Amino acid sequence: MPEWLLYPTPHSFISRGMRRKPPRKDRPAFRGNPKEKASQPAKRARGETWIYGLHAVQAALANPRRRLGRAVLTARAAETIGAELLARVRVEPAEAEAINRLLPPGAVHQGAALETEPLAALDLDAVLAQGEPGKRRVVLVLDQLSDPHNVGAILRTAAAFDVAAVIVQDRHAPPQSGALAKAASGALETVPYIEVVNIVRALDRLAERGFWRIALAGDGAEPLTKVIPQGDVALVLGSEGDGIRRLVREHCEAGAFIPIAGQMESLNVSNAAAIALYELRRGTSS
Amino acid sequence: MPEWLLYPTPHSFISRGMRRKPPRKDRPAFRGNPKEKASQPAKRARGETWIYGLHAVQAALANPRRRLGRAVLTARAAETIGAELLARVRVEPAEAEAINRLLPPGAVHQGAALETEPLAALDLDAVLAQGEPGKRRVVLVLDQLSDPHNVGAILRTAAAFDVAAVIVQDRHAPPQSGALAKAASGALETVPYIEVVNIVRALDRLAERGFWRIALAGDGAEPLTKVIPQGDVALVLGSEGDGIRRLVREHCEAGAFIPIAGQMESLNVSNAAAIALYELRRGTSS
Repeated sequence: MPEWLLYPTPHSFISRGMRRKPPRKDRPAFRGNPKEKASQPAKRARGETWIYGLHAVQAALANPRRRLGRAVLTARAAETIGAELLARVRVEPAEAEAINRLLPPGAVHQGAALETEPLAALDLDAVLAQGEPGKRRVVLVLDQLSDPHNVGAILRTAAAFDVAAVIVQDRHAPPQSGALAKAASGALETVPYIEVVNIVRALDRLAERGFWRIALAGDGAEPLTKVIPQGDVALVLGSEGDGIRRLVREHCEAGAFIPIAGQMESLNVSNAAAIALYELRRGTSS
Repeated sequence: MPEWLLYPTPHSFISRGMRRKPPRKDRPAFRGNPKEKASQPAKRARGETWIYGLHAVQAALANPRRRLGRAVLTARAAETIGAELLARVRVEPAEAEAINRLLPPGAVHQGAALETEPLAALDLDAVLAQGEPGKRRVVLVLDQLSDPHNVGAILRTAAAFDVAAVIVQDRHAPPQSGALAKAASGALETVPYIEVVNIVRALDRLAERGFWRIALAGDGAEPLTKVIPQGDVALVLGSEGDGIRRLVREHCEAGAFIPIAGQMESLNVSNAAAIALYELRRGTSS
Protein backbone atom coordinates (compact mmCIF):
# COMPACT_ATOMS: atom_id res chain seq x y z
CA MET A 1 0.00 0.00 0.00
CA PRO A 2 1.45 3.41 -0.88
CA GLU A 3 2.62 5.44 2.08
CA TRP A 4 0.36 8.38 1.19
CA LEU A 5 -2.73 6.24 1.68
CA LEU A 6 -1.59 5.34 5.17
CA TYR A 7 -0.67 8.78 6.42
CA PRO A 8 -2.45 11.49 4.50
CA THR A 9 -2.81 14.81 6.25
CA PRO A 10 -5.31 17.32 4.88
CA HIS A 11 -2.37 19.03 3.21
CA SER A 12 -0.58 16.00 1.74
CA PHE A 13 -3.98 14.76 0.64
CA ILE A 14 -4.09 17.70 -1.74
CA SER A 15 -0.47 18.13 -2.63
CA ARG A 16 0.26 14.61 -3.73
CA GLY A 17 -1.42 15.21 -7.00
CA MET A 18 -4.43 12.96 -6.63
CA ARG A 19 -6.48 13.08 -9.78
CA ARG A 20 -9.52 15.21 -9.30
CA LYS A 21 -12.07 17.04 -11.34
CA PRO A 22 -11.27 20.67 -12.02
CA PRO A 23 -12.90 22.93 -9.43
CA ARG A 24 -16.22 24.31 -10.51
CA LYS A 25 -18.37 27.05 -9.18
CA ASP A 26 -20.93 24.72 -7.65
CA ARG A 27 -18.62 22.06 -6.37
CA PRO A 28 -16.51 22.07 -3.23
CA ALA A 29 -12.77 22.04 -3.82
CA PHE A 30 -10.21 21.08 -1.23
CA ARG A 31 -8.74 24.55 -1.54
CA GLY A 32 -11.45 27.13 -1.78
CA ASN A 33 -11.60 30.31 -3.80
CA PRO A 34 -12.73 32.98 -1.34
CA LYS A 35 -14.75 34.78 -4.00
CA GLU A 36 -16.74 31.64 -4.79
CA LYS A 37 -17.13 30.94 -1.10
CA ALA A 38 -18.92 34.20 -0.51
CA SER A 39 -21.37 33.64 -3.33
CA GLN A 40 -22.02 29.96 -2.68
CA PRO A 41 -22.19 29.56 1.08
CA ALA A 42 -24.64 26.65 1.14
CA LYS A 43 -22.61 24.57 -1.29
CA ARG A 44 -19.43 25.11 0.68
CA ALA A 45 -20.63 23.97 4.08
CA ARG A 46 -18.18 21.88 6.08
CA GLY A 47 -18.41 18.13 5.70
CA GLU A 48 -18.95 18.07 1.95
CA THR A 49 -15.98 15.87 1.24
CA TRP A 50 -17.07 13.40 3.90
CA ILE A 51 -18.96 10.20 3.44
CA TYR A 52 -20.71 9.04 6.58
CA GLY A 53 -23.00 6.27 7.81
CA LEU A 54 -22.02 2.62 8.16
CA HIS A 55 -23.27 1.30 4.82
CA ALA A 56 -21.94 4.26 2.84
CA VAL A 57 -18.50 4.12 4.50
CA GLN A 58 -18.24 0.35 4.11
CA ALA A 59 -19.10 0.55 0.44
CA ALA A 60 -16.62 3.38 -0.18
CA LEU A 61 -13.86 1.40 1.56
CA ALA A 62 -14.71 -1.62 -0.59
CA ASN A 63 -14.56 0.40 -3.82
CA PRO A 64 -11.11 0.22 -5.41
CA ARG A 65 -11.97 3.24 -7.61
CA ARG A 66 -12.41 5.38 -4.50
CA ARG A 67 -9.46 7.46 -3.26
CA LEU A 68 -9.52 7.91 0.46
CA GLY A 69 -8.34 10.27 3.17
CA ARG A 70 -8.79 9.26 6.81
CA ALA A 71 -11.59 7.34 8.47
CA VAL A 72 -12.84 8.85 11.73
CA LEU A 73 -14.63 6.12 13.64
CA THR A 74 -16.04 5.24 17.00
CA ALA A 75 -14.70 1.99 18.44
CA ARG A 76 -18.04 0.34 17.79
CA ALA A 77 -18.22 1.50 14.16
CA ALA A 78 -14.63 0.33 13.57
CA GLU A 79 -15.57 -3.10 14.93
CA THR A 80 -18.65 -3.27 12.71
CA ILE A 81 -16.72 -2.29 9.59
CA GLY A 82 -13.92 -4.73 10.36
CA ALA A 83 -10.16 -4.77 10.01
CA GLU A 84 -10.13 -6.02 6.43
CA LEU A 85 -11.88 -2.98 4.97
CA LEU A 86 -9.99 -0.62 7.28
CA ALA A 87 -6.58 -1.87 6.16
CA ARG A 88 -6.80 0.58 3.22
CA VAL A 89 -7.17 3.70 5.29
CA ARG A 90 -5.76 5.63 8.21
CA VAL A 91 -8.16 5.21 11.11
CA GLU A 92 -8.63 8.01 13.60
CA PRO A 93 -10.56 6.82 16.67
CA ALA A 94 -13.08 9.37 17.93
CA GLU A 95 -16.15 9.81 20.07
CA ALA A 96 -19.47 10.35 18.30
CA GLU A 97 -19.50 13.96 19.51
CA ALA A 98 -16.20 14.71 17.77
CA ILE A 99 -17.56 13.22 14.54
CA ASN A 100 -20.64 15.45 14.85
CA ARG A 101 -18.34 18.45 14.71
CA LEU A 102 -16.74 17.30 11.44
CA LEU A 103 -20.10 16.95 9.68
CA PRO A 104 -23.08 19.14 8.85
CA PRO A 105 -25.65 19.57 11.64
CA GLY A 106 -28.00 16.62 11.94
CA ALA A 107 -25.85 14.17 9.94
CA VAL A 108 -26.74 10.62 11.00
CA HIS A 109 -23.23 9.19 10.87
CA GLN A 110 -23.61 6.07 13.03
CA GLY A 111 -20.07 6.61 14.31
CA ALA A 112 -18.43 6.47 10.88
CA ALA A 113 -17.04 9.28 8.72
CA LEU A 114 -14.64 8.88 5.82
CA GLU A 115 -12.74 11.62 4.02
CA THR A 116 -12.87 11.01 0.29
CA GLU A 117 -12.20 12.39 -3.13
CA PRO A 118 -15.13 12.38 -5.55
CA LEU A 119 -15.05 9.39 -7.87
CA ALA A 120 -13.44 9.98 -11.26
CA ALA A 121 -15.97 11.29 -13.77
CA LEU A 122 -17.62 8.71 -16.01
CA ASP A 123 -18.39 9.05 -19.70
CA LEU A 124 -21.91 8.20 -20.87
CA ASP A 125 -20.79 6.50 -24.08
CA ALA A 126 -18.29 4.32 -22.27
CA VAL A 127 -20.92 3.25 -19.73
CA LEU A 128 -23.52 2.51 -22.41
CA ALA A 129 -20.99 0.44 -24.37
CA GLN A 130 -21.19 -2.09 -21.52
CA GLY A 131 -24.36 -3.96 -20.54
CA GLU A 132 -25.66 -7.48 -21.04
CA PRO A 133 -27.12 -8.26 -24.43
CA GLY A 134 -30.76 -9.37 -24.38
CA LYS A 135 -31.60 -7.51 -21.19
CA ARG A 136 -33.51 -4.25 -21.20
CA ARG A 137 -31.25 -1.39 -20.23
CA VAL A 138 -32.74 1.33 -18.07
CA VAL A 139 -31.16 4.74 -17.58
CA LEU A 140 -32.49 7.36 -15.18
CA VAL A 141 -32.21 11.03 -16.12
CA LEU A 142 -32.69 13.44 -13.22
CA ASP A 143 -33.60 16.93 -14.42
CA GLN A 144 -32.40 19.39 -11.77
CA LEU A 145 -33.09 17.25 -8.75
CA SER A 146 -31.06 18.97 -6.08
CA ASP A 147 -32.20 17.32 -2.84
CA PRO A 148 -29.37 14.97 -1.81
CA HIS A 149 -31.72 12.67 0.13
CA ASN A 150 -33.90 12.15 -2.93
CA VAL A 151 -30.98 11.64 -5.31
CA GLY A 152 -29.33 9.26 -2.85
CA ALA A 153 -32.52 7.27 -2.37
CA ILE A 154 -32.91 7.07 -6.15
CA LEU A 155 -29.35 5.73 -6.47
CA ARG A 156 -30.16 3.03 -3.92
CA THR A 157 -33.27 2.00 -5.84
CA ALA A 158 -31.34 2.20 -9.11
CA ALA A 159 -28.88 -0.37 -7.73
CA ALA A 160 -31.75 -2.59 -6.62
CA PHE A 161 -33.26 -2.56 -10.12
CA ASP A 162 -30.02 -2.86 -12.04
CA VAL A 163 -30.08 0.57 -13.67
CA ALA A 164 -27.27 1.10 -16.20
CA ALA A 165 -26.65 4.75 -15.30
CA VAL A 166 -28.07 7.72 -13.43
CA ILE A 167 -27.56 10.95 -15.35
CA VAL A 168 -27.68 14.37 -13.70
CA GLN A 169 -26.88 17.90 -14.78
CA ASP A 170 -23.60 18.93 -13.21
CA ARG A 171 -24.67 22.47 -12.34
CA HIS A 172 -27.68 21.29 -10.34
CA ALA A 173 -26.57 17.97 -8.89
CA PRO A 174 -25.94 17.66 -5.17
CA PRO A 175 -22.36 16.88 -4.07
CA GLN A 176 -21.37 13.21 -4.36
CA SER A 177 -20.87 12.79 -0.63
CA GLY A 178 -22.61 13.41 2.67
CA ALA A 179 -26.39 13.14 2.66
CA LEU A 180 -26.49 11.76 -0.89
CA ALA A 181 -24.02 8.97 -0.11
CA LYS A 182 -25.81 8.19 3.16
CA ALA A 183 -29.22 7.85 1.47
CA ALA A 184 -27.63 5.83 -1.35
CA SER A 185 -26.50 3.29 1.26
CA GLY A 186 -23.50 2.23 -0.81
CA ALA A 187 -25.07 2.54 -4.26
CA LEU A 188 -22.93 5.60 -5.08
CA GLU A 189 -20.04 3.15 -5.37
CA THR A 190 -21.81 0.75 -7.74
CA VAL A 191 -24.28 2.65 -9.95
CA PRO A 192 -22.63 4.72 -12.71
CA TYR A 193 -23.50 8.30 -11.75
CA ILE A 194 -22.85 10.61 -14.67
CA GLU A 195 -22.79 14.37 -14.51
CA VAL A 196 -23.45 15.99 -17.88
CA VAL A 197 -23.39 19.63 -18.92
CA ASN A 198 -26.58 19.41 -20.93
CA ILE A 199 -29.48 17.06 -20.21
CA VAL A 200 -31.08 17.57 -23.64
CA ARG A 201 -27.87 16.57 -25.40
CA ALA A 202 -27.61 13.49 -23.19
CA LEU A 203 -31.17 12.56 -24.20
CA ASP A 204 -30.21 12.94 -27.85
CA ARG A 205 -27.28 10.61 -27.33
CA LEU A 206 -29.54 8.09 -25.63
CA ALA A 207 -31.98 8.29 -28.55
CA GLU A 208 -29.16 7.63 -31.01
CA ARG A 209 -28.44 4.46 -29.06
CA GLY A 210 -32.04 3.34 -29.34
CA PHE A 211 -33.32 4.32 -25.90
CA TRP A 212 -37.04 5.12 -25.69
CA ARG A 213 -37.32 8.30 -23.60
CA ILE A 214 -40.17 8.52 -21.12
CA ALA A 215 -40.86 11.68 -19.09
CA LEU A 216 -42.49 10.67 -15.79
CA ALA A 217 -44.67 13.42 -14.33
CA GLY A 218 -47.99 13.81 -12.57
CA ASP A 219 -49.46 15.43 -15.69
CA GLY A 220 -48.13 12.85 -18.15
CA ALA A 221 -50.46 11.88 -20.97
CA GLU A 222 -50.78 8.15 -20.28
CA PRO A 223 -50.32 5.70 -17.43
CA LEU A 224 -46.80 4.33 -17.34
CA THR A 225 -47.88 0.77 -18.17
CA LYS A 226 -49.22 1.98 -21.54
CA VAL A 227 -45.99 3.54 -22.76
CA ILE A 228 -43.37 0.91 -21.86
CA PRO A 229 -41.71 -0.39 -25.03
CA GLN A 230 -39.82 -3.65 -25.56
CA GLY A 231 -36.29 -2.28 -25.57
CA ASP A 232 -34.05 0.12 -23.68
CA VAL A 233 -35.64 2.95 -21.72
CA ALA A 234 -34.45 6.31 -20.45
CA LEU A 235 -36.76 7.44 -17.66
CA VAL A 236 -36.73 11.18 -17.00
CA LEU A 237 -37.68 12.58 -13.58
CA GLY A 238 -38.03 16.22 -12.59
CA SER A 239 -37.47 18.10 -9.36
CA GLU A 240 -40.24 18.11 -6.75
CA GLY A 241 -40.72 21.84 -7.08
CA ASP A 242 -40.54 22.53 -10.78
CA GLY A 243 -40.97 19.16 -12.48
CA ILE A 244 -39.34 18.41 -15.81
CA ARG A 245 -38.35 21.46 -17.86
CA ARG A 246 -40.26 21.99 -21.09
CA LEU A 247 -37.31 21.53 -23.41
CA VAL A 248 -36.30 18.31 -21.67
CA ARG A 249 -39.84 16.99 -21.91
CA GLU A 250 -39.94 17.82 -25.61
CA HIS A 251 -36.98 15.51 -26.07
CA CYS A 252 -38.96 12.53 -24.79
CA GLU A 253 -41.09 10.19 -26.91
CA ALA A 254 -43.72 9.76 -24.21
CA GLY A 255 -45.09 11.43 -21.11
CA ALA A 256 -46.35 9.05 -18.45
CA PHE A 257 -47.87 9.18 -14.99
CA ILE A 258 -48.30 6.72 -12.13
CA PRO A 259 -52.00 6.47 -11.26
CA ILE A 260 -52.61 7.70 -7.72
CA ALA A 261 -55.62 8.66 -5.62
CA GLY A 262 -56.96 12.17 -5.95
CA GLN A 263 -56.35 13.18 -2.35
CA MET A 264 -52.57 13.39 -2.82
CA GLU A 265 -51.14 15.73 -5.41
CA SER A 266 -47.97 13.80 -6.12
CA LEU A 267 -45.61 11.06 -5.06
CA ASN A 268 -42.22 11.73 -3.55
CA VAL A 269 -39.81 11.61 -6.50
CA SER A 270 -37.77 8.70 -5.12
CA ASN A 271 -40.95 6.71 -4.54
CA ALA A 272 -42.11 7.52 -8.08
CA ALA A 273 -38.74 6.33 -9.38
CA ALA A 274 -39.01 3.11 -7.36
CA ILE A 275 -42.47 2.31 -8.72
CA ALA A 276 -41.44 3.10 -12.28
CA LEU A 277 -38.31 0.96 -12.07
CA TYR A 278 -40.32 -1.88 -10.57
CA GLU A 279 -42.80 -1.58 -13.43
CA LEU A 280 -39.99 -1.52 -16.02
CA ARG A 281 -38.42 -4.66 -14.57
CA ARG A 282 -41.76 -6.38 -14.04
CA GLY A 283 -42.63 -9.37 -16.17
CA THR A 284 -40.47 -8.52 -19.16
CA SER A 285 -36.73 -8.81 -19.43
CA SER A 286 -36.35 -7.85 -23.07
CA MET B 1 -63.21 32.69 15.83
CA PRO B 2 -62.56 32.22 19.56
CA GLU B 3 -60.25 34.74 21.11
CA TRP B 4 -57.80 32.09 22.31
CA LEU B 5 -57.09 31.04 18.75
CA LEU B 6 -56.15 34.56 17.85
CA TYR B 7 -53.86 35.32 20.74
CA PRO B 8 -52.43 32.19 22.24
CA THR B 9 -49.22 32.55 24.18
CA PRO B 10 -47.21 29.45 24.98
CA HIS B 11 -48.78 29.59 28.44
CA SER B 12 -52.38 30.22 27.46
CA PHE B 13 -51.98 27.54 24.81
CA ILE B 14 -51.59 25.05 27.63
CA SER B 15 -53.85 26.50 30.25
CA ARG B 16 -56.98 26.79 28.18
CA GLY B 17 -57.60 23.10 28.53
CA MET B 18 -57.14 21.99 24.93
CA ARG B 19 -57.85 18.34 24.57
CA ARG B 20 -54.67 16.37 24.37
CA LYS B 21 -53.41 12.87 24.86
CA PRO B 22 -52.07 12.13 28.33
CA PRO B 23 -48.31 12.67 28.48
CA ARG B 24 -46.30 9.54 28.01
CA LYS B 25 -42.69 8.71 28.58
CA ASP B 26 -41.73 8.79 24.92
CA ARG B 27 -43.83 11.71 23.83
CA PRO B 28 -43.13 15.39 24.25
CA ALA B 29 -45.54 17.25 26.50
CA PHE B 30 -45.97 20.98 26.57
CA ARG B 31 -44.95 20.89 30.21
CA GLY B 32 -42.04 18.55 30.72
CA ASN B 33 -41.20 16.32 33.63
CA PRO B 34 -37.52 17.00 34.41
CA LYS B 35 -36.91 13.37 35.32
CA GLU B 36 -38.16 12.15 31.96
CA LYS B 37 -36.23 14.86 30.22
CA ALA B 38 -32.94 13.58 31.55
CA SER B 39 -33.59 10.02 30.45
CA GLN B 40 -35.08 10.87 27.03
CA PRO B 41 -32.99 13.70 25.63
CA ALA B 42 -33.39 12.80 21.98
CA LYS B 43 -37.15 12.62 22.18
CA ARG B 44 -37.37 15.97 23.93
CA ALA B 45 -35.36 18.08 21.53
CA ARG B 46 -36.74 21.51 20.79
CA GLY B 47 -39.06 21.81 17.83
CA GLU B 48 -41.03 18.65 18.48
CA THR B 49 -44.37 20.39 18.73
CA TRP B 50 -43.70 22.26 15.50
CA ILE B 51 -44.86 21.40 12.04
CA TYR B 52 -42.75 23.00 9.34
CA GLY B 53 -42.45 23.12 5.57
CA LEU B 54 -44.98 24.74 3.24
CA HIS B 55 -47.04 21.68 2.31
CA ALA B 56 -47.15 20.36 5.87
CA VAL B 57 -48.12 23.73 7.34
CA GLN B 58 -50.76 24.38 4.68
CA ALA B 59 -52.32 20.97 5.25
CA ALA B 60 -52.34 21.42 9.03
CA LEU B 61 -54.00 24.84 8.67
CA ALA B 62 -56.61 23.28 6.38
CA ASN B 63 -57.38 20.47 8.83
CA PRO B 64 -60.32 21.35 11.09
CA ARG B 65 -59.31 18.51 13.47
CA ARG B 66 -55.97 20.21 14.09
CA ARG B 67 -55.60 22.54 17.10
CA LEU B 68 -53.11 25.28 16.49
CA GLY B 69 -50.77 27.62 18.33
CA ARG B 70 -48.99 30.35 16.38
CA ALA B 71 -47.62 30.33 12.85
CA VAL B 72 -44.13 31.76 12.50
CA LEU B 73 -43.67 32.71 8.87
CA THR B 74 -41.44 34.63 6.53
CA ALA B 75 -43.28 37.22 4.43
CA ARG B 76 -42.84 35.03 1.38
CA ALA B 77 -44.18 31.89 3.06
CA ALA B 78 -47.17 33.85 4.40
CA GLU B 79 -47.92 35.03 0.88
CA THR B 80 -47.65 31.49 -0.51
CA ILE B 81 -49.93 30.06 2.16
CA GLY B 82 -52.46 32.83 1.71
CA ALA B 83 -54.75 34.85 3.96
CA GLU B 84 -57.62 32.37 3.90
CA LEU B 85 -55.71 29.56 5.60
CA LEU B 86 -53.96 31.99 7.93
CA ALA B 87 -57.21 33.46 9.22
CA ARG B 88 -57.36 30.56 11.71
CA VAL B 89 -54.10 31.29 13.41
CA ARG B 90 -51.96 34.01 14.99
CA VAL B 91 -49.22 34.87 12.53
CA GLU B 92 -45.82 35.91 13.83
CA PRO B 93 -43.67 37.36 11.02
CA ALA B 94 -40.04 36.30 11.22
CA GLU B 95 -36.85 35.98 9.24
CA ALA B 96 -35.76 32.49 8.16
CA GLU B 97 -32.87 32.66 10.63
CA ALA B 98 -35.23 33.17 13.56
CA ILE B 99 -37.30 30.17 12.42
CA ASN B 100 -34.11 28.09 12.29
CA ARG B 101 -33.64 28.75 15.98
CA LEU B 102 -37.11 27.43 16.83
CA LEU B 103 -36.53 24.13 15.05
CA PRO B 104 -34.07 21.24 15.23
CA PRO B 105 -30.78 21.75 13.36
CA GLY B 106 -31.09 21.16 9.64
CA ALA B 107 -34.90 21.42 9.50
CA VAL B 108 -35.93 22.42 5.96
CA HIS B 109 -38.78 24.74 6.94
CA GLN B 110 -39.17 26.83 3.76
CA GLY B 111 -40.02 29.83 5.91
CA ALA B 112 -43.01 28.21 7.60
CA ALA B 113 -43.35 26.82 11.14
CA LEU B 114 -46.61 26.13 12.93
CA GLU B 115 -47.06 25.33 16.60
CA THR B 116 -49.54 22.49 16.97
CA GLU B 117 -51.09 19.96 19.28
CA PRO B 118 -50.91 16.31 18.19
CA LEU B 119 -54.12 15.19 16.51
CA ALA B 120 -56.62 13.42 18.75
CA ALA B 121 -55.94 9.69 18.92
CA LEU B 122 -57.92 7.50 16.52
CA ASP B 123 -59.44 4.12 17.27
CA LEU B 124 -58.70 1.29 14.83
CA ASP B 125 -62.21 -0.18 14.99
CA ALA B 126 -63.83 3.18 14.30
CA VAL B 127 -61.55 3.78 11.30
CA LEU B 128 -62.18 0.31 9.88
CA ALA B 129 -65.93 0.74 10.26
CA GLN B 130 -65.66 3.34 7.48
CA GLY B 131 -64.48 2.57 3.95
CA GLU B 132 -66.17 2.14 0.59
CA PRO B 133 -67.82 -1.21 -0.03
CA GLY B 134 -66.46 -3.13 -3.03
CA LYS B 135 -63.03 -1.56 -2.90
CA ARG B 136 -60.04 -3.40 -1.50
CA ARG B 137 -58.99 -1.87 1.80
CA VAL B 138 -55.28 -1.67 2.50
CA VAL B 139 -53.81 -1.04 5.94
CA LEU B 140 -50.11 -0.53 6.60
CA VAL B 141 -48.62 -1.85 9.83
CA LEU B 142 -45.21 -0.40 10.70
CA ASP B 143 -43.32 -2.59 13.16
CA GLN B 144 -40.93 -0.34 15.11
CA LEU B 145 -40.08 2.02 12.30
CA SER B 146 -38.58 4.95 14.15
CA ASP B 147 -37.07 7.11 11.39
CA PRO B 148 -39.41 10.10 10.98
CA HIS B 149 -38.37 10.65 7.34
CA ASN B 150 -39.29 7.10 6.43
CA VAL B 151 -42.57 7.11 8.35
CA GLY B 152 -43.47 10.50 6.85
CA ALA B 153 -42.64 9.36 3.33
CA ILE B 154 -44.76 6.25 3.89
CA LEU B 155 -47.70 8.42 5.01
CA ARG B 156 -47.40 10.46 1.82
CA THR B 157 -47.43 7.32 -0.32
CA ALA B 158 -50.28 5.91 1.77
CA ALA B 159 -52.35 8.98 0.90
CA ALA B 160 -51.46 8.57 -2.77
CA PHE B 161 -52.68 4.96 -2.76
CA ASP B 162 -55.74 5.49 -0.63
CA VAL B 163 -54.61 3.49 2.38
CA ALA B 164 -57.31 3.12 5.05
CA ALA B 165 -54.93 3.43 8.01
CA VAL B 166 -51.28 3.40 9.01
CA ILE B 167 -50.75 1.57 12.29
CA VAL B 168 -47.66 2.06 14.45
CA GLN B 169 -46.61 0.96 17.92
CA ASP B 170 -46.87 3.93 20.25
CA ARG B 171 -43.64 3.23 22.14
CA HIS B 172 -41.53 3.22 18.96
CA ALA B 173 -43.28 5.69 16.70
CA PRO B 174 -41.63 9.00 15.88
CA PRO B 175 -43.41 12.17 17.10
CA GLN B 176 -46.31 13.30 14.91
CA SER B 177 -44.65 16.57 13.96
CA GLY B 178 -41.39 17.95 12.61
CA ALA B 179 -39.51 15.72 10.20
CA LEU B 180 -42.36 13.21 9.97
CA ALA B 181 -44.92 15.87 9.05
CA LYS B 182 -42.51 17.47 6.58
CA ALA B 183 -41.85 14.19 4.76
CA ALA B 184 -45.57 13.36 4.83
CA SER B 185 -46.17 16.59 2.88
CA GLY B 186 -49.66 17.02 4.30
CA ALA B 187 -50.65 13.35 4.50
CA LEU B 188 -50.45 13.39 8.31
CA GLU B 189 -53.68 15.40 8.15
CA THR B 190 -55.54 13.00 5.87
CA VAL B 191 -54.35 9.42 6.45
CA PRO B 192 -55.62 7.85 9.69
CA TYR B 193 -52.44 7.33 11.72
CA ILE B 194 -53.12 4.99 14.60
CA GLU B 195 -50.80 4.36 17.51
CA VAL B 196 -51.46 1.04 19.22
CA VAL B 197 -49.91 -0.48 22.31
CA ASN B 198 -49.46 -3.91 20.78
CA ILE B 199 -48.89 -4.61 17.08
CA VAL B 200 -49.71 -8.32 17.41
CA ARG B 201 -53.08 -7.54 18.95
CA ALA B 202 -53.78 -5.04 16.16
CA LEU B 203 -53.00 -7.78 13.61
CA ASP B 204 -55.44 -10.10 15.38
CA ARG B 205 -58.12 -7.44 15.17
CA LEU B 206 -57.39 -6.97 11.47
CA ALA B 207 -57.65 -10.73 10.94
CA GLU B 208 -61.03 -10.79 12.69
CA ARG B 209 -62.19 -8.19 10.16
CA GLY B 210 -61.07 -10.35 7.27
CA PHE B 211 -57.77 -8.68 6.42
CA TRP B 212 -55.12 -10.90 4.83
CA ARG B 213 -51.85 -10.11 6.60
CA ILE B 214 -48.70 -9.97 4.49
CA ALA B 215 -45.24 -9.48 6.01
CA LEU B 216 -43.04 -7.71 3.47
CA ALA B 217 -39.35 -8.46 3.95
CA GLY B 218 -36.26 -9.16 1.88
CA ASP B 219 -36.29 -12.79 3.04
CA GLY B 220 -40.02 -13.35 2.46
CA ALA B 221 -40.99 -16.76 1.05
CA GLU B 222 -42.65 -15.63 -2.19
CA PRO B 223 -42.69 -12.65 -4.52
CA LEU B 224 -45.39 -10.17 -3.56
CA THR B 225 -47.42 -10.73 -6.73
CA LYS B 226 -47.95 -14.39 -5.74
CA VAL B 227 -49.48 -13.71 -2.35
CA ILE B 228 -51.95 -10.91 -3.08
CA PRO B 229 -55.49 -12.08 -2.33
CA GLN B 230 -58.77 -10.68 -3.62
CA GLY B 231 -59.89 -8.83 -0.51
CA ASP B 232 -58.58 -6.52 2.20
CA VAL B 233 -54.87 -6.55 2.97
CA ALA B 234 -52.76 -5.56 5.95
CA LEU B 235 -49.19 -5.02 4.78
CA VAL B 236 -46.57 -5.27 7.53
CA LEU B 237 -43.21 -3.50 7.20
CA GLY B 238 -40.26 -3.68 9.58
CA SER B 239 -37.53 -1.25 10.54
CA GLU B 240 -34.50 -0.91 8.29
CA GLY B 241 -32.19 -2.23 10.96
CA ASP B 242 -34.05 -5.13 12.51
CA GLY B 243 -36.83 -5.99 10.08
CA ILE B 244 -40.12 -7.43 11.29
CA ARG B 245 -40.04 -9.04 14.73
CA ARG B 246 -40.55 -12.79 14.80
CA LEU B 247 -43.80 -12.71 16.78
CA VAL B 248 -45.27 -10.10 14.44
CA ARG B 249 -44.27 -12.14 11.42
CA GLU B 250 -45.89 -15.23 12.91
CA HIS B 251 -49.17 -13.33 12.98
CA CYS B 252 -49.12 -12.91 9.20
CA GLU B 253 -50.61 -15.35 6.67
CA ALA B 254 -47.84 -14.76 4.13
CA GLY B 255 -44.27 -13.53 3.87
CA ALA B 256 -43.45 -11.74 0.63
CA PHE B 257 -40.51 -10.01 -1.02
CA ILE B 258 -40.07 -7.56 -3.88
CA PRO B 259 -37.69 -9.06 -6.46
CA ILE B 260 -34.54 -6.93 -6.75
CA ALA B 261 -31.10 -7.31 -8.29
CA GLY B 262 -28.46 -9.10 -6.28
CA GLN B 263 -26.07 -6.16 -6.03
CA MET B 264 -28.29 -4.29 -3.55
CA GLU B 265 -29.17 -5.91 -0.28
CA SER B 266 -32.47 -4.17 0.26
CA LEU B 267 -34.80 -1.37 -0.71
CA ASN B 268 -35.37 1.69 1.41
CA VAL B 269 -38.48 0.89 3.45
CA SER B 270 -40.52 3.79 2.05
CA ASN B 271 -39.65 2.72 -1.49
CA ALA B 272 -40.60 -0.86 -0.66
CA ALA B 273 -43.91 0.41 0.72
CA ALA B 274 -44.51 2.48 -2.43
CA ILE B 275 -43.91 -0.49 -4.73
CA ALA B 276 -46.08 -2.80 -2.63
CA LEU B 277 -48.95 -0.29 -2.51
CA TYR B 278 -48.68 0.24 -6.26
CA GLU B 279 -48.83 -3.52 -6.76
CA LEU B 280 -51.83 -3.85 -4.43
CA ARG B 281 -53.71 -1.14 -6.30
CA ARG B 282 -52.64 -2.39 -9.71
CA GLY B 283 -55.21 -3.99 -11.95
CA THR B 284 -57.62 -5.16 -9.30
CA SER B 285 -60.03 -3.05 -7.33
CA SER B 286 -61.72 -5.85 -5.41
